[in-house]
Amino acid sequence: MAWWKVSSAGRDVNPDLASERENPSFNVETLTNILDGGVEETRSRRAIVSAINKDPVFSREYLYFKTRSERYEGAVRNTFHLKRKMKEMGLDENSSEIGYVYRALGGEIALNIHNVFMKTINALGTDEQIAKWLPLARNYKILGTYAQTELGHGTYLRGLETTATFDPNTQEFIIDTPKITATKWWPGDLGKTCTHAVVQAQLYSNGMKYGMHPFIVPIRSLEDHSSLPGITVGDIGPKMSFEHIDNGFVMMRNIRIPKENMLSRYSQVLPDGSYVKSGSEKINYFSMIGVRVDMLTREVLEPLMKACTISVRYSTVRRQSELKPGDREPKILDYQTQQQKLLPLVATCYSISFMAKYLEKFYKDSYSEIRKENFNSLPELHALASGIKAFATEICSNGVEVCRKACGGHGYSLYSGLPSLYTKVTASCTYEGENTVLHLQLARFLIKCFAGAQSGRPLPTSIAYLSSPATGNCQARAHGDFLNPEVYLKAYEFRAYSLIASAAHKIQNLLQSGVEQYLAWNSTSVELVKASIAHIHFLTVKIFISALNSLPDQPDLKTSLKRLCDLYALHGIFISAGDFLQHGHLSGKQLDMATTAYLGLLADLRKDAVLLVDAFDYTDEELLSALGTYDGNVYHNLIDWAQKNPENKKVNPVFETYLKPYLQSNQSKL
Amino acid sequence: MAWWKVSSAGRDVNPDLASERENPSFNVETLTNILDGGVEETRSRRAIVSAINKDPVFSREYLYFKTRSERYEGAVRNTFHLKRKMKEMGLDENSSEIGYVYRALGGEIALNIHNVFMKTINALGTDEQIAKWLPLARNYKILGTYAQTELGHGTYLRGLETTATFDPNTQEFIIDTPKITATKWWPGDLGKTCTHAVVQAQLYSNGMKYGMHPFIVPIRSLEDHSSLPGITVGDIGPKMSFEHIDNGFVMMRNIRIPKENMLSRYSQVLPDGSYVKSGSEKINYFSMIGVRVDMLTREVLEPLMKACTISVRYSTVRRQSELKPGDREPKILDYQTQQQKLLPLVATCYSISFMAKYLEKFYKDSYSEIRKENFNSLPELHALASGIKAFATEICSNGVEVCRKACGGHGYSLYSGLPSLYTKVTASCTYEGENTVLHLQLARFLIKCFAGAQSGRPLPTSIAYLSSPATGNCQARAHGDFLNPEVYLKAYEFRAYSLIASAAHKIQNLLQSGVEQYLAWNSTSVELVKASIAHIHFLTVKIFISALNSLPDQPDLKTSLKRLCDLYALHGIFISAGDFLQHGHLSGKQLDMATTAYLGLLADLRKDAVLLVDAFDYTDEELLSALGTYDGNVYHNLIDWAQKNPENKKVNPVFETYLKPYLQSNQSKL
Repeated sequence: MAWWKVSSAGRDVNPDLASERENPSFNVETLTNILDGGVEETRSRRAIVSAINKDPVFSREYLYFKTRSERYEGAVRNTFHLKRKMKEMGLDENSSEIGYVYRALGGEIALNIHNVFMKTINALGTDEQIAKWLPLARNYKILGTYAQTELGHGTYLRGLETTATFDPNTQEFIIDTPKITATKWWPGDLGKTCTHAVVQAQLYSNGMKYGMHPFIVPIRSLEDHSSLPGITVGDIGPKMSFEHIDNGFVMMRNIRIPKENMLSRYSQVLPDGSYVKSGSEKINYFSMIGVRVDMLTREVLEPLMKACTISVRYSTVRRQSELKPGDREPKILDYQTQQQKLLPLVATCYSISFMAKYLEKFYKDSYSEIRKENFNSLPELHALASGIKAFATEICSNGVEVCRKACGGHGYSLYSGLPSLYTKVTASCTYEGENTVLHLQLARFLIKCFAGAQSGRPLPTSIAYLSSPATGNCQARAHGDFLNPEVYLKAYEFRAYSLIASAAHKIQNLLQSGVEQYLAWNSTSVELVKASIAHIHFLTVKIFISALNSLPDQPDLKTSLKRLCDLYALHGIFISAGDFLQHGHLSGKQLDMATTAYLGLLADLRKDAVLLVDAFDYTDEELLSALGTYDGNVYHNLIDWAQKNPENKKVNPVFETYLKPYLQSNQSKL
Repeated sequence: MAWWKVSSAGRDVNPDLASERENPSFNVETLTNILDGGVEETRSRRAIVSAINKDPVFSREYLYFKTRSERYEGAVRNTFHLKRKMKEMGLDENSSEIGYVYRALGGEIALNIHNVFMKTINALGTDEQIAKWLPLARNYKILGTYAQTELGHGTYLRGLETTATFDPNTQEFIIDTPKITATKWWPGDLGKTCTHAVVQAQLYSNGMKYGMHPFIVPIRSLEDHSSLPGITVGDIGPKMSFEHIDNGFVMMRNIRIPKENMLSRYSQVLPDGSYVKSGSEKINYFSMIGVRVDMLTREVLEPLMKACTISVRYSTVRRQSELKPGDREPKILDYQTQQQKLLPLVATCYSISFMAKYLEKFYKDSYSEIRKENFNSLPELHALASGIKAFATEICSNGVEVCRKACGGHGYSLYSGLPSLYTKVTASCTYEGENTVLHLQLARFLIKCFAGAQSGRPLPTSIAYLSSPATGNCQARAHGDFLNPEVYLKAYEFRAYSLIASAAHKIQNLLQSGVEQYLAWNSTSVELVKASIAHIHFLTVKIFISALNSLPDQPDLKTSLKRLCDLYALHGIFISAGDFLQHGHLSGKQLDMATTAYLGLLADLRKDAVLLVDAFDYTDEELLSALGTYDGNVYHNLIDWAQKNPENKKVNPVFETYLKPYLQSNQSKL
């Protein structure tokens, strides 16, 4: 074996990374437990992740070399293997540990929307419909998808154009995509896999339109998987990521389905075509919010946590350039500019993690209330979930890309793991509601609350500050004052209040000057989005501070997390300084102090950086990154992966066809 | 043929896009000529682009469906076809129209670094070396690459570890990669194609180290393309983009090459091992700057121009949601939030375009001086080119991604053209110098100039304001005052000056308090990067204003471009408000005025948006986007492309293997 052949077995941890873990300033395991929600959760997660990681069928070792078709086939294989595996492990789809299974699989799984298909039937079907369809779906005797988005309409559901027209003569619905823009477009599992779909369509009966309703429509033959008559179905083609998912399109030309295929828990069409509502649809609406709550941790926060782990570890192993003349090249994390890129993002991971827990609790509490027919919390929950989804997806996507670029050229190689994290997480900015639309939904709620507060109405808890806003200017007199959470929390409150109030006043002024309502709203919408962001930003700071207060009594850990909270808050002031200065809450001099405090925290937190990302507790198999392994042997990893590359084991066909005729045309000169 | 089969032939322009082009407020063709640099240039570009677009060999129609290997093979095929084609067209590699050829090819071409190989020999080789190697390379009898970056070192060239040791006994150099981190990593064309490389290595002779020098090293056999003894070479594997390029790695174990293979125009080793310098290496250094100047238009600006074209056109065709109650769904470009995403980016395209022209001229002028052995302008040119590269790559990459997200879900499909633009342009943030490092290079120059100004030394033109900074606060009293270029230019000058001065003072204070120089620099580096950005930002505004003043005498066009310049400047104030407020140049009230002026410009420029991107004059073949075609038939395009998808023409193997056993296990229930 040549001298430069590298063996991956039994390597020591790179001393540059090992030294970061010596004399830790707090107990990393305790922090992991806090993130997991308890010691038992950590144990259970590790057991499951380890079982999945060890199973060779689930191995992602060659993932970055695979074609789209191979990725799809692998994901389908994983899905059916998982079914058996979970039985072995004593888990089923309702187990609370299911999240750990998906975490360990790193997303390489198919039939995800088949699960949404089942959930939808369960939520919107009658008992008879559930009894008929769910056992079939659960045993994969049919494969479903959920078809809502169309070529012409996404977030704006009222604009959907697919129709379902009741024919009382035959007791059937006629499902039709009457225009090209009505083509269902995007549903996962539709492209090459599913046999059935829950299709959302505008219901017509006896000439009346009743809005969007769900219908079960057969798509492909169970016999030979060919598309059924009147159906044109296929894969929409390559996307920025999600190579393993067959997002599809379907056109339906006057497809007849039996009346029983309309999911009728909340509304039905009687044999004579009359339309009857039964019960409240709000619970249905509530489950749409649930999707936005659920996606936060796994789809949005997790990519940022992984990206921080990779880039922070790499930054302690990569040595480059010169800091102190004559000294060894420093670790790049010793550069203030590198700290400024990565440490605020580590803080953001913690912030979003605490916020996700807050939102989950809010959602669960609302659910208990809603089951008692109390829908009071629904507007606040909806508005917050919208704003938080938009805020978190934007900040996490951008953050992953900052981490990637912070790894320089190596961050551009798929081996770093970072490009795949980015191209996937950025999708979350437009799916499950486009972010600008969502911010404007929160803004609408805020403006309404602001008006309510002006007329003395009581406000929901998270918005209560609009009734009694912080007044007066910031009292900080030295940079140390900015390490006081009361000081920066007040600044965030003041900023959110000012932006909401000034948008409300602008709308008010425009209306008073005779501008129409819709124009007044539209010409304030840039400021309304800013106000929505400022509100959520304030909330994240507030939640981070309360999370600090409920920590276990470990002073070392508290010190580090307190610094992280300070950093999160002061970084926000540093990058959005204009908002804090504009209405005079901070003076220019105070901003200087805040900046000094902020830059000081970068230096203080530098030594905890690796510990803070180690606490996320991702295995090397989960990270799938040459730069981010626990042992820090990044250059060996890169060489290993290059040697794994199947392209390097093949003869290059280009040589014979294109190169040889030139290269050999006249060699005598060499 | 089924009713929904869509023919692509002979479609009318979508009326929603056609209406945007009615009654244009200026002559689009004139603007195109300005961007091209003259009427004749436009004509010549169109002729070349059309010839390339029409050639079926160069067709990129199925590009988004291809695997990495297919992309690589296609790019090699294109390269050799292009050689013939250019002969046909009467062009050679030195023709001034060569840029149009590359523009038309959309990057799908191989052997790009083979050109760098030739340029390097031409620049650094002796006349004999040029005479020996260039004809071989020009006729593809050898294929070269340029191997500089290593696994362990990128931007920091002094850290490179590959060695070239002179052996006087045999009159050879011994080329060696003594450590794993010395492995050459990234060079294009190295992975699967090249036979030779210019290798940058640390020169050792008679026990002395002489720094980095270039050597021609044979890599693969001309006979059978196998790697030569002592060479381990291969493809580094998949990247975020550039699927068609075989970036490679090479380890060299004591490879002996003849003494004549050291490129010796500026330095050579004599037979006895003594080292002799001849002439100035500054000219070599100068050509490195040239790469940063050249990349601006084609690699950095062009992706943003294309992304703007696609997203603006799409935004006039996409209708969604409700603005005025009861009205038809509006074009999404009618929403202020959509204007705020796209119009400042259109303005940025023009700004960067004018700046690129400015830098090209500066570069050419310097070149004339340098040929007269006058190197005075080199420090300023180097600093500016560094800062502009960092500024432009960051703003253009981020801008492309904003355009992509502004197209919602459809922006995530490769068919939109936008993901490929992004994944490619973002590489420019880390190649040819990592952006943070480059900003700090400009900052070092600015701090030096600032100190010089304090002691009365004259400063280079672009930095002259540091000698006599704008003083006094902004005089604007109404939002209309912010449409005065003098007002906002002064604000930008004030901001840049303040940030540079305050960083300089901080460093000074730290030094005076006994902090070591390198620590003072490092703990100010976040602020130094901000200062560098502010300087370039100021420069872009200044250059945009001068470009306005040199426009042909067409009042309509001037009005639109003047608005665009205003928008560019006021958008910058809006998003970086803190910098303008902090040192008191603007008051909070004035910021409100600037915001009002800014939002007003969005509305004013809305009607010119399509014209302003039409003027970039990209053909549909160049854009390769279902959302961006000139005719605006986006939904038909998407369906067409889905039908082209080869996956939809294949039988899905997953059905037989995985699905059928489940689906057919018990069908009686359905």
